[in-house]
Order: sequence, then structure tokens, then C-alpha cells
Amino acid sequence: MNYQLILDELFPPIKNAAIIGEVASYIPELAHVRPEKFGVHLCCLQGGDYFIGDHSERFSIQSISKVLSLAMAFKIEGESIWKRVGVEPSGNPFNSLIQLEYENGKPRNPLINSGALVICDILISHLDNPLEELLSFIRKISGQSSITINEKVAASEKAFGHRNAALINLMKSFGNIENDIDQVLDFYFYQCAIEMSCLELARTMLLFSNRGKILSSGEEMLTSSQTKRLNAIMQSCGFYDEAGEFTYRVGLPGKSGVGGGIVAIHPGEYSVAVWSPPLNPKGNSARGMRFLEDLTTKTGLSIF
Amino acid sequence: MNYQLILDELFPPIKNAAIIGEVASYIPELAHVRPEKFGVHLCCLQGGDYFIGDHSERFSIQSISKVLSLAMAFKIEGESIWKRVGVEPSGNPFNSLIQLEYENGKPRNPLINSGALVICDILISHLDNPLEELLSFIRKISGQSSITINEKVAASEKAFGHRNAALINLMKSFGNIENDIDQVLDFYFYQCAIEMSCLELARTMLLFSNRGKILSSGEEMLTSSQTKRLNAIMQSCGFYDEAGEFTYRVGLPGKSGVGGGIVAIHPGEYSVAVWSPPLNPKGNSARGMRFLEDLTTKTGLSIF
Amino acid sequence: MNYQLILDELFPPIKNAAIIGEVASYIPELAHVRPEKFGVHLCCLQGGDYFIGDHSERFSIQSISKVLSLAMAFKIEGESIWKRVGVEPSGNPFNSLIQLEYENGKPRNPLINSGALVICDILISHLDNPLEELLSFIRKISGQSSITINEKVAASEKAFGHRNAALINLMKSFGNIENDIDQVLDFYFYQCAIEMSCLELARTMLLFSNRGKILSSGEEMLTSSQTKRLNAIMQSCGFYDEAGEFTYRVGLPGKSGVGGGIVAIHPGEYSVAVWSPPLNPKGNSARGMRFLEDLTTKTGLSIF
Amino acid sequence: MNYQLILDELFPPIKNAAIIGEVASYIPELAHVRPEKFGVHLCCLQGGDYFIGDHSERFSIQSISKVLSLAMAFKIEGESIWKRVGVEPSGNPFNSLIQLEYENGKPRNPLINSGALVICDILISHLDNPLEELLSFIRKISGQSSITINEKVAASEKAFGHRNAALINLMKSFGNIENDIDQVLDFYFYQCAIEMSCLELARTMLLFSNRGKILSSGEEMLTSSQTKRLNAIMQSCGFYDEAGEFTYRVGLPGKSGVGGGIVAIHPGEYSVAVWSPPLNPKGNSARGMRFLEDLTTKTGLSIF
Repeated sequence: MNYQLILDELFPPIKNAAIIGEVASYIPELAHVRPEKFGVHLCCLQGGDYFIGDHSERFSIQSISKVLSLAMAFKIEGESIWKRVGVEPSGNPFNSLIQLEYENGKPRNPLINSGALVICDILISHLDNPLEELLSFIRKISGQSSITINEKVAASEKAFGHRNAALINLMKSFGNIENDIDQVLDFYFYQCAIEMSCLELARTMLLFSNRGKILSSGEEMLTSSQTKRLNAIMQSCGFYDEAGEFTYRVGLPGKSGVGGGIVAIHPGEYSVAVWSPPLNPKGNSARGMRFLEDLTTKTGLSIF
Repeated sequence: MNYQLILDELFPPIKNAAIIGEVASYIPELAHVRPEKFGVHLCCLQGGDYFIGDHSERFSIQSISKVLSLAMAFKIEGESIWKRVGVEPSGNPFNSLIQLEYENGKPRNPLINSGALVICDILISHLDNPLEELLSFIRKISGQSSITINEKVAASEKAFGHRNAALINLMKSFGNIENDIDQVLDFYFYQCAIEMSCLELARTMLLFSNRGKILSSGEEMLTSSQTKRLNAIMQSCGFYDEAGEFTYRVGLPGKSGVGGGIVAIHPGEYSVAVWSPPLNPKGNSARGMRFLEDLTTKTGLSIF
Repeated sequence: MNYQLILDELFPPIKNAAIIGEVASYIPELAHVRPEKFGVHLCCLQGGDYFIGDHSERFSIQSISKVLSLAMAFKIEGESIWKRVGVEPSGNPFNSLIQLEYENGKPRNPLINSGALVICDILISHLDNPLEELLSFIRKISGQSSITINEKVAASEKAFGHRNAALINLMKSFGNIENDIDQVLDFYFYQCAIEMSCLELARTMLLFSNRGKILSSGEEMLTSSQTKRLNAIMQSCGFYDEAGEFTYRVGLPGKSGVGGGIVAIHPGEYSVAVWSPPLNPKGNSARGMRFLEDLTTKTGLSIF
Repeated sequence: MNYQLILDELFPPIKNAAIIGEVASYIPELAHVRPEKFGVHLCCLQGGDYFIGDHSERFSIQSISKVLSLAMAFKIEGESIWKRVGVEPSGNPFNSLIQLEYENGKPRNPLINSGALVICDILISHLDNPLEELLSFIRKISGQSSITINEKVAASEKAFGHRNAALINLMKSFGNIENDIDQVLDFYFYQCAIEMSCLELARTMLLFSNRGKILSSGEEMLTSSQTKRLNAIMQSCGFYDEAGEFTYRVGLPGKSGVGGGIVAIHPGEYSVAVWSPPLNPKGNSARGMRFLEDLTTKTGLSIF
């Protein structure tokens, strides 16, 4: 499969079409990103990097970080994390309190805000410096040692983070948060503020196509079984209340962020990262969704 | 992969373990089924049937029929069916009215009761005798001409069908049902009352592993793209509010029924049907879930 | 208190103001009513009828009938009716299924559609000809022997009654309906189609101001305690999700109907009926609400 | 009406009956209160105090304080407070987030926790020292200058106040909180920790029976119209999701607190306060509800 040819063919029509959707504006730092930014990077397990557009420019990965902190927590604690968070799609917006209240403070899954807060709480209970360890984990997998936080974004997340504060206080009232609320929120806001490029994200996510091993070194970061299960969770829960739509149209496990990034994995084949800031009404990158749908249609490859 | 060896190894420990769960009892005909019944049938795309236990005994396929009528409707009408029903997991029990009311009478997906009623309505609008055509479709795919309805089950479904009557009346009030309510309900109750064995179900579902073609004849019943999309819907929505759990533990698209049957597909590899009547609290066959989890763990094969 | 003077003063400014709101249009028979119709009739316990505008023209009383059938059922069966229906405000629109599903088929109160259907079911279980008995009850209290049903309205209610069919089927599935669904629905649609004038409604409701006794004859139709309790229910539940607003602004127990009628009671003082078809967004007569607020403000009399 | 005779008759059978219900235990300070405590104090507008049992012992008034801070806010700001909080019964438990999320951060009414937090926020915007002013207001009305806060209760409320923190953060995210979250929460927790006896509460609430005037001095603290409206809100919303039941059984406006206190008002007649710590499942004093029901049944007096 000549992926570069496919990228070169699929990219321009989307790039040239009118931009639909709105750049996330709940914090000023995200609102200032230029909407025409658009990049793709695909890493093939057989070897080979394929890319186009703004693939090497860093952006705020936001909720894509949830997959990475989940992977760390799952590696450390294993199946017992499911006592505190589920694996079911929420069928609701990413920051809904309703389900959380009905279900007594146990989040539906670790890829919505409430679940990611529980994962942060778990990591804080296990690690002295969870943020530094998370960054090390990502730098190691991606092979990119300069990946870091945007402090202004982190501060802005905190300043406008009342909805997340509501979620964590509700979970605390149900006894599902062990550590200090402000400490958990801080870690959460910092992880959302990690900046990576499509190149860096695709390299990182290649781990999930490769049964948990770093391709270059062969080092096993996750077991094959853990990797499959994380992929399954991305498939079920990676796109908030558009998870079914993404599964239907793209047919790959993946995760989106409000910064406009989407990552997706074809187990045994490739990983891919797309970035285009304008979001559709469900909060997922409009061009990113479109590009990935075209990609799996064109290649005829999906997991289904 | 020696599937027969795997079946012979995995089956006895589950068969010999204490039975957990309850046989569906909302209609007398289902309540009378013996709980110790247990069968498995696996059809390999490479050729070969593998089976164990009560694999050739017919049972009430119930909601598994929803996949088959959906396939027919999708084949006939194509993407326009999504104007009237979604592809998102519901995150709620199979017969909940709540979501339907909030979402103005458009069911979340075609594999919950409300969505299946819309699919029945679509088929009635297109076909003179939808029940006969559905049976013909199934008989053709499975190569089993004697597959038919259990009239007593159908009558019993109707007698106890007030919840489904509530669903369809609610959708009618939102303008999402075109035909006479009783006609749609009758067709729905009849399709639930189809009886098939694991053997017959596995042969039928092999179509979905084979990109829409009947293996024996090569005839294309669904396009490759349609088949992928139907598999994606099964992945997202096949197990009510346990869809994420099934994806996590089994990692294959599938569909369950309250008769105790579960079908699952590994695209390009095999189809499998399991039958064990006692249900877990979410309404899915407890032993069936367990067997399929062991199967994908043992074979190391899942789509993830 | 010179009520006629007050009516003469309050009526013209409302009559002359621009009409706000929409006439109910879910059935053609209601949609054809002229929006400028406006009448008031007040019956004083001290004796005396005061009225203005279209007070003697009959209109469809719709949900106001719920109070009258409730009074009959309460008289017949007493406190045991509360096993099947509550006395709490619903906080939701009049025909919501959501609460009913969460609360296992027990309606919040007898003045929303689901609760009124349960009351109809109770009356059918007790009476050979509940509709005739209900009409007799109303004719006797009001002293107006010609009060009857509009058959066209009843037929139309039935033709567009899918939402009510959904409610009753849901309750049937929870075991909270004893009789045949169609029989209960028919009785319900007929009671909604009773036609009365403001004069007739005010005379009827005077019973509730007079501790359950017919003023002219002194005959006790309800005990003093029963009357107080029915008034309390009207206070809590008479105006769907605007019950609190009505209590706040008007401060009297009452009941509205989508035909544009509102009745209200000042225990020990008077009963009043207002009719103006255009409804506010909550489904209550806009001018009716306004008039009653002005009336209690002007007289300085409310129960609070 | 000889109220003392009635109290002497009604009190012993309830006092001697087995205690049903549980003392509030969410904070240790409340859990330690002795369950057999039971007192009643009734102030008659005609003059005269009637009492029995532990009527002069102070307890934590908890949510009863919501009526008093609401009265202050309504007096200061008038009808414009309804832009930020409604007057409808919630139909849900006192601290539910669900409705608040659906309704975009505007609480249903000022007598549930979310609404009371908005009222606290309003008072903070208007007053330099809202807690001191609230205490002065209560001391003046009751004529009891020693009424004050229990600091340990306030500290404990704060330590276990995550649910309230969730509510206020959610409202802040919708823009319905003007001041610093911690400041509003502190004021809220302090007002809940006010301690008063039945005697002091009944004297305070007599204001609401007397059209807003202090009986002893004749000073008007609230207008007649404001008083009626506050009474209407107590009728609709004073008992969480048991408001309809209280209206049905007791037929008076009132307010309960989890400390086991209940106040009720008969406009133009009397005010009454009851205290018995064990709560029914809805969070209202079990014996208090029972006593007030017997009182209005015995006297034959309710507003209905």
C-alpha cells in the first residue's frame, strides 16, 4: 500500500474545501489557534513515515492525553482500575454530570473527563511525580525528548475549570477520589496542556498497533493483552457521544481532543494522527473525521 | 489454528461450572427452556465447521434477528435509513423510553428495540410480505430451508408486548413510524420468534466475515462496505449497555438475544454462535460471554 | 368585596392587550377555536355570580376534567388510590414518559396524563358506565343537565393519542393498569372532550370552596377532609411544570386545560373560571394566568 | 381554639410510639444528637405561646435557614432574583445535579441547596458582612439576641461539603455565581450551622403569619405581598421531593431541615416549630411530619 500516494490524493480536496466547524474557544489559548492548520502523519508498522501539511507543528493534545495516562495506570495497577471506572460508552457529552450522579460517582469510562480524573487520582496514589513520569513515558515511546507542557494553557484550563471541579467534587462525595481535589485537578489540567505534533503523536500511538512494543527498540511497554484492551476502549469510548459514528464511518480505534487532534490505530498495520482545529458539534475535529473516513474507504482497510 | 481442539478444551470447564444467571422469564415460552443447554458452532472462512454441545438444537434467536432485518433494510434503502435511526450506543437498557423521549423519537441505534421497530417499519414500507422475505433471506444465506417461526413464542411476545407498544406509540407521536402500529409490532414479534440453531446462526453470520458474500456460492448479498458498516454497528451497539464490556473482554463485533444466543464475527477469519439460556444482569448469556472471552484470549485473535 | 366591580376593572386591559401565545393545535377541533374568546365567571360562597365576556360559551375543558374524575375516584375508593398514583408535582411536562419509567410506572400525581389514566382505570374497575356516571356527577354539582361530550373532539383525541397510548402501555408493562388499554384510553379521551362554560365550571368548582357540599342543596358530595386534600393536590400539581409559578403569582389551588380554561378556588370564599384559548409555552392559558394574578393582587386575598 | 389542650393531647402518643427513621449522619455533629429529643412550640397571632417537650433546646436549623436568607435577599433585591433561580418544585432530592445541568445552571427554587447557594451569592454581592446581617435579621425578628452559629457544625459541613462544591462549581461554569466559590460556600455552611430552639423558630416564623410585620413592635420587615409570595414558595418547595405529600397531609406552607426541625405557618393564625431528629427516607423529620398532620387534622384548620 503506497500510503504517501494516498495522503497526497486525499489531503488537497479537504484542505481546499470551505472550513466547517468552530475552533474550541472555552479558553483563550485554544481560541487563538489558526483554523486553517491541517496536518497528517502516518507511521507504518512495516516501517516508513508518511505525512503531509502541518504534521510537525505542535498543538495542544488535550483529551488525547487521556489514553496515555490510562495506559500508564493500567500498566501499574492492572484490572483493578475497573473497580473505580467502567469501560462503557457514555452516550453523553464528555463532561456530563448526570450519568455520574445516577451511577454513584463511578464514571462510565476513562476517556471522558470524570474517568480521566479518576485515572489521575490513581496515578497520584502510585507515583511521587506523576506529571514528570507521564512526560517521560511519552518521550520514551515517541523518541522525542522535547515534548512538554504549555504552562499558559494549563493555567487557563484551571481558571476555567469549574465544570471539572464539579465532576471531581461529585466523585469525592461518593468516595471515588482518594487524593486532594486540587492536586488531582492540577495534574489533570497539566496533562491536557501537553503539546505534540502529528509526527510525535503517530510515533507514540504506534505502540498500540505493535502489541505494546516500541518499534525501534522492541521494548515491551504494555503486554499484548493490555494493548488489545486499551484499543477496545478507544473503539468504544474514544469519541464521546460520537463513538458509534466514528466506528461506523472510520472503523478504527482512536481518540480525539478539542485541540483538533485525532489519533487512530490499525492494529498490526499503522498509526495515524490528524490535526485540524475546527470542531464539529460533538467536539471532534471536522476535517480530521473526514480525512480518516476517506483514508479507510480509500485503503479498503478497517478492522471490520 | 485448530479450532476443534480449542473448543474441546474451553467448553468443559464452563459446562461443568455452576450455572449463574437467570433464564429470561418475561414470556412463558422462554422460561421453559432448560438452563443447562449449551452449544457452540464456529464456521471458518478457510472452510470447516467446528462445534460442541447442543450446537444443532434450535432456540429462539430473539434480538439476534435485529441484525438480519437491519442487513435487509440497509441493502434495500442504503444510508438514508440513518435519517430515522442512529448508530450510537445507547448506554441504557434495551427497551428504555427515556432516551427516545429526549431525542425526539429517533432511536440511538437499530439494535435496540426502538431502532429495530423503525427497521421493521422501513421493511414494511418496501416489501409486500416482509416476514416471508426475511425468512427467505436467512434461509438463503444459511443454506437451511427449514428455518421458521415459533408461533407460540410470537403470540406470547405480543401478549406481553406493552413495553414495545409504548416505544412504538412514542415514536409514532414523533412522526417516526409510517405504517400501522399493530402491523409493525406483529412483524417485530414474529422476527423475534425465529428459531435457529448455533449451526444455522454461525453459517448465516459467516456472511459478515466474508465481506457480504455467501461462502458456498460466492453470491454477494451485501457490498464489502455495507458489511464493514454493519460489523461496526454490531461492535458499538450489539450488547445493549454492556457493549463496551463485550468489546473490552471479547474484542469482536457481535449480537446477543434474550433466548441465550450470542453471535460474533472475526472479519476475514470466522463466525461463531454460542447458546446458553441463563442471562447475566445486563440480559446477555452469561456462559456465552465467558466462552467468547476465553475463545479470543486462547486464540490470541481479536480485531484489536 | 364587590367582585363585579373588580372584574369590570381587570378584564378590559387584558382583553385589549395584544394576544400572546398559541391556541392548542395538536387536534384540529381545538385549533379552530377563535383566539380572542375570553370570559370569566366567579361564584361567591356568600351567594352571587359575577361574570364578564364569553362566560357562558362552552369550550373543551380538557385536563380540567382530571379534577372531576379524581374527585369521583377518591370518593369511591379513598386513600387506597395513592398506592397507584402519587401526590407530588412532576416538575416535568404533562405527558413525559421519563419520570414514569424511572419510577416504575407509578405516576407522580393524578393531574398529569399518566395519573389521570390510572384514575380512569380505577373508575372503570368500579363502575359499569363510568362516562355516564362522571357526566351525572358533573351535571348534579353544577346544576346544568345539558353538559355533554363533543364527539368530534373525542374522536380526534383518539386519532392523535399516540403519546397517551405510549404512557398507558408503559404503565401496563409495570402492572399498574387493570383494564383493557383501549377501554381506558376511550374513557380518558371522552372525559377530555367534555364541554362546559365558565359559568358551569365555576358552579361546579364551588363544591371545592364549600368543603364538599353543593351550595344550593347542602348535599355533601365529598367530606371536608377529602375536599381539603383535593385542593392541596390542585395546589401542588394543577399546572404541570408551572405549578410553582401559579402558586407564587396567584396563590390559589386550581387546574388548567389546553382548551384555554383555568379554574381556581379560594376555600371558604369563591370559585372562579377563566377561558382564553391562547396558551403560554408551558401549556396554560396566558390571559387566564394573567387575569387570576391580577384578581388575587387586586383583592389582596390569597390562601397565603 | 385551645392550642395548649391540643398539644397536650397530640404529643404523648407520638412521643411514646417507637422511633422510626434515622438521625442525619453525614456529619458527626448531627449524628450525635439524641434521637428521642422532641419539642413543639406554637405562637398564635392572637397572642399566646403554646409548647411542649424540648421546645426551648437549641438544635441545628440547617435548611430552615434557607427561608430566612431568601427573605433577606428578596427584601433587598425584589423580583429580579428570579432571573437566577426559579420558583418551581424540583421533584428531585435536595442536592441533585441532574436538573441543574439540564436547566443550564439555574436552580429550580431557592429552598434546595443549589438555589440557596445562589441566594448566598446574591447576599454577598449586596452586603459587607452577610453572615452578621443574617444573624441580626433573625435576632431582631425573634427577639432573641443570643442566637448564633455552632462553629464545629460549620467546620464539619465544610469538611464534608463536596456535593455542595460540585453544585456551585457547576453553576459557576454556567455563569450563575458572581463571587468567589469558597466565600459563597463558607457563608452557606455558616448559615446552615445556626442553632435555634423551637421557641425561637416559631417566634421568627410568626412574621410570615403576620403579613411581614413583627408582632410585638408592628415593624414591617417584609411587605404583605412579599410575605404571601414567600409563603407560596414554602408551600411549593419547602420539603424537597416530599413537598406534595406535606401539602396533601398538612396543608400549610413550611420548611424542614436535616437537623430534625420543621416550621409551618398558618397565615393569619399561627406559626409552629417542631423538632425531632430522626428523619424519614425523604430527609424530613418523621415525628415532625406526623405531629403537624395531626395538628391540622385535629384543629380542622388548613389553608385549604
